[in-house]
Amino acid sequence: MSLNYSKRMNNIKASEIRELLKLTQKPEIISFAGGLPAPELFPVEEMKKISVEVLDEQGTKALQYGPTEGYEPLRVEITKRMEKVGVKADPNDILVISGSQQGLDFSGKIFLNEGDIVLCESPSYLGAINAFKAYEPKFIEVPTDEHGMIMEDLEEILKNNDRVRIIYVIPDFQNPSGRTWSEDRRKRIVELANEYNVVIIEDNPYGELRFEGEFLPAVKHYDTEGRVVFLGTFSKIFCPGLRLGWVCADSEALNKYILVKQGADLQASTISQMQVAKFLEEYDIEAHIEKLRTVYRKRRDLMIGTMKEEFPEGVKFTNPEGGLFTWVVLPEHINARVLAEKALANNVAFVPGGSFFPNGGNENTFRLNYSNMDEEKIVIGIKRLAKAIKEMM
Amino acid sequence: MSLNYSKRMNNIKASEIRELLKLTQKPEIISFAGGLPAPELFPVEEMKKISVEVLDEQGTKALQYGPTEGYEPLRVEITKRMEKVGVKADPNDILVISGSQQGLDFSGKIFLNEGDIVLCESPSYLGAINAFKAYEPKFIEVPTDEHGMIMEDLEEILKNNDRVRIIYVIPDFQNPSGRTWSEDRRKRIVELANEYNVVIIEDNPYGELRFEGEFLPAVKHYDTEGRVVFLGTFSKIFCPGLRLGWVCADSEALNKYILVKQGADLQASTISQMQVAKFLEEYDIEAHIEKLRTVYRKRRDLMIGTMKEEFPEGVKFTNPEGGLFTWVVLPEHINARVLAEKALANNVAFVPGGSFFPNGGNENTFRLNYSNMDEEKIVIGIKRLAKAIKEMM
Repeated sequence: MSLNYSKRMNNIKASEIRELLKLTQKPEIISFAGGLPAPELFPVEEMKKISVEVLDEQGTKALQYGPTEGYEPLRVEITKRMEKVGVKADPNDILVISGSQQGLDFSGKIFLNEGDIVLCESPSYLGAINAFKAYEPKFIEVPTDEHGMIMEDLEEILKNNDRVRIIYVIPDFQNPSGRTWSEDRRKRIVELANEYNVVIIEDNPYGELRFEGEFLPAVKHYDTEGRVVFLGTFSKIFCPGLRLGWVCADSEALNKYILVKQGADLQASTISQMQVAKFLEEYDIEAHIEKLRTVYRKRRDLMIGTMKEEFPEGVKFTNPEGGLFTWVVLPEHINARVLAEKALANNVAFVPGGSFFPNGGNENTFRLNYSNMDEEKIVIGIKRLAKAIKEMM
Repeated sequence: MSLNYSKRMNNIKASEIRELLKLTQKPEIISFAGGLPAPELFPVEEMKKISVEVLDEQGTKALQYGPTEGYEPLRVEITKRMEKVGVKADPNDILVISGSQQGLDFSGKIFLNEGDIVLCESPSYLGAINAFKAYEPKFIEVPTDEHGMIMEDLEEILKNNDRVRIIYVIPDFQNPSGRTWSEDRRKRIVELANEYNVVIIEDNPYGELRFEGEFLPAVKHYDTEGRVVFLGTFSKIFCPGLRLGWVCADSEALNKYILVKQGADLQASTISQMQVAKFLEEYDIEAHIEKLRTVYRKRRDLMIGTMKEEFPEGVKFTNPEGGLFTWVVLPEHINARVLAEKALANNVAFVPGGSFFPNGGNENTFRLNYSNMDEEKIVIGIKRLAKAIKEMM
């Protein structure tokens, strides 16, 4: 017996990352696979104190339903995070959601009819690709170099495809490539979106995790017509286990997200919103983020340094200025899925790159995460990986 | 400037209840509008103790990402709740979601193509209607009496409509009518679903809140072919502010829900799942639910008793055996939306019944909630409401 499922379910496959993460929970595995923050840096003691305070001060409110838009003091705090990425926002421009992944699903729901076109970087975040797929779009991957999407190619694609509805971008320390967009391209993409009447979904989980180089404002900073929807999250600068993120958008678009949130799950957790608001009010989040930057910078240096020493010639990789990931391109004849099996047999895990390309191909690529493993494991893991690559050269 | 939205957004309107709830947050308002539990019964002290314990015992895990399916010890505890409603389930049959509202959205995503048909009780829960509408179905309201959907009518509709994909039911203390299905109909609907190859979505937020009368097993108890999807929640037996519910379904269907959960928001809050699991392990949830039953029974008695005394002849209402709501039918010439405005001018709020009918009409009905107001307010509020009705007779 099989039930009748909707047509869209043919598009929805298990995320390779989530499946891999299950395998990598064994303690002997050195995992560069997930996008997990370093748990030893979570503010556990502060959260304990805050949890008690929130329940002491407004326990019955914390455990009750709250407004769909989100807890007002948290929306106020989020406008301060938006300032940090160069965006002036009002609390009314903010909707609190259950992690920024939810903002991706909502964006598909709000903007995509079947057969519409999503433009994305090549490669792009596979969780976004999976979320959009539920709304049955086509994807066109825009050629992308170390400064972001190539604007001439983007314009050409917009000119020739009148069903483009979303341009999806991660301009800072992109997942999976680790690349960051130049200022020129941040400005130019907004001009093109205006000209061709499309929406930009700017996914920005890592923007505040810059280790070096010059600060660049978010694409939303250059928005002139309310057509950039910014997705933010506390998962990478605070803790992912609380599942809290936000949408920042102008009122017309934000109202659509609020309506969709009502139908999807009514509201984000009241108590978690109060906890995060209190943390932001009482503790120094800037100092906390600085601590993350210091640790992640060190881990990146160690990973990239070891790769430079150990990886054979012909293997290329990015050197990100922030965020959690580096991206590796193998010689074309080496399949990263085969390499992944070999590596897993030696207790090292990573995500093969093919799934980051919505239209497939590029099986000679993979993504490495450096935020979640300690320094010793990074060195051992990269050495083992180098050995496996060499055996396949 | 207006953005290009998807066609489905034409169907998605603000929930009348959520909008009303904003108005009713003023302290002078006596609100029978929401479906809010009594906050004074929330286990605030226990939650304080548990929050600290969870962070002491496994702080870094509690704040980290977790598996999409949910926290294993909570899934085990949920199987015990399923036993209480007569369903034998394995932890692998359970997916933890962000409130059962999310299960409604997922059900639409999984089962509905545009133009497919959803059958529902008449009236039905407006949050479900709104969630399904995003997937552009048609609704057929199945005639419903005090024992549930009328099976002869249901069969006739199934016979004449080959695009029915979902039968959506709330068999226990229905929202909004307060009615409970008979055992015969619980069995019969499964037979009909089998015969016509459709899925039953059984929404069961109130099943454990029975004040009197005989226990009846959930419709899922009678499921023979894995075509009943059961949605449960901690919102009414514990606290809604944590946003935790669950899907209980056989593996084929549950796997679809897990895939959709990945794309929608990755997972439910790790820390909240650990907190609820710990509460269920360490405290006596049965005693807590019994306390809710006692308080709500008293409030129902008082509301129904006062309505009997004060409401004019020609006004009918249900006397629910459990749950949170009673349903009022006015003489046909009285419009409940007009009455609602009159009542609000006297600081009493309720939800007009029209929105609970997906195909409209029935404007002479409304829903009253008795769980959220104390006894004094119930009496004062019902008296004011009776006065307003009398003025319109």
